[in-house]
Amino acid sequence: MRKGCLIVVSGPSGTGKGTVCGEFLHVHEEISYSISATTRSPREGEQDGVNYYFLSRDEFERMIEKGELLEWAEVYGNYYGTPLKKIEEQLGAGRDILLEIDTQGALDVQKKFPDGIYVFILPPSIEELERRLRGRGTDSEAVVTQRLAAAASEIAVAKEYAYTIVNDKVENAVRILSAIVEAEHARTRNNVEKINAMLKGV
Amino acid sequence: MRKGCLIVVSGPSGTGKGTVCGEFLHVHEEISYSISATTRSPREGEQDGVNYYFLSRDEFERMIEKGELLEWAEVYGNYYGTPLKKIEEQLGAGRDILLEIDTQGALDVQKKFPDGIYVFILPPSIEELERRLRGRGTDSEAVVTQRLAAAASEIAVAKEYAYTIVNDKVENAVRILSAIVEAEHARTRNNVEKINAMLKGV
Repeated sequence: MRKGCLIVVSGPSGTGKGTVCGEFLHVHEEISYSISATTRSPREGEQDGVNYYFLSRDEFERMIEKGELLEWAEVYGNYYGTPLKKIEEQLGAGRDILLEIDTQGALDVQKKFPDGIYVFILPPSIEELERRLRGRGTDSEAVVTQRLAAAASEIAVAKEYAYTIVNDKVENAVRILSAIVEAEHARTRNNVEKINAMLKGV
Repeated sequence: MRKGCLIVVSGPSGTGKGTVCGEFLHVHEEISYSISATTRSPREGEQDGVNYYFLSRDEFERMIEKGELLEWAEVYGNYYGTPLKKIEEQLGAGRDILLEIDTQGALDVQKKFPDGIYVFILPPSIEELERRLRGRGTDSEAVVTQRLAAAASEIAVAKEYAYTIVNDKVENAVRILSAIVEAEHARTRNNVEKINAMLKGV
């Protein structure tokens, strides 16, 4: 049986990668979403095991020590990480799984899963990204400036990803992401068993 | 401007690769078809410059000498080959071009165009391939046996192709081929200029 594919999606804040991933998973019910673990408090409406696994610092640090996290980072005093066991289970069962993480995490994951599908979501332009960040109306001027600087340094890492999607329109981005996953399924290295079986029949 | 992609499709006789390529090009009018050169006589209805470039042996051999063929072979006393100039022109103009050639030719092309998109079309099974070859009713028993043996040795080369499509249904195969081409367009290496331009804007 074919193993599942690990799909890793990153992109700067404001590119709409969350919306793209959400729509993509809505269309592809056969693909799982990797739920992250975090020590930050749940926001209104967030559910444990749905949005995140909400853990105490002790629980999280125990996972780090036992090597149970594929990648993790501490951001503004909170831990965020990707539990490894679920991913291995799903991939082993032939199920694709989507991981939405930052560039630092993605680079760590690449070392362990070099055959994963690495996709970077770009904004149409820096100006458009700025417009979107301001348009949210939730962030102060200082935060917008900070996010833009962070975006630039993240975009510089885009070259480490096999694929790049410009999110000009969500439907286009979702279509391209779907094409990438379908193409990856057609990779010869994912079909070697089929070819060998066919040659045995000769 | 993005350079065009070279799409190379191979597969054993009877897999329906001609139908898949024809349907694919019908859907993707933006993609060109590379017309082969040959010294064999035109069959009923075949037009020079449409189905093939029909050349004399002298003309063909002159092209070989001048290095004007991307690949060529002599099969049953006739020459077949791929004129290089048209391909380079189209790719340079940012136009994708599809090349339908045998495995030997494709391996030669890979050396010159390592970034090409190499796709192998497989039959659903050897039994189904045999059924299709007999179903044509045009070939003698000896020819069917010969084609099956040739198919087996071609399938053994499928592992040299990045992608493998099982042609169970033409519409599925065309959809997967379209996905592969769309995914290749999203390859980061095809979008480096876009990323650099974006970083300049920061």
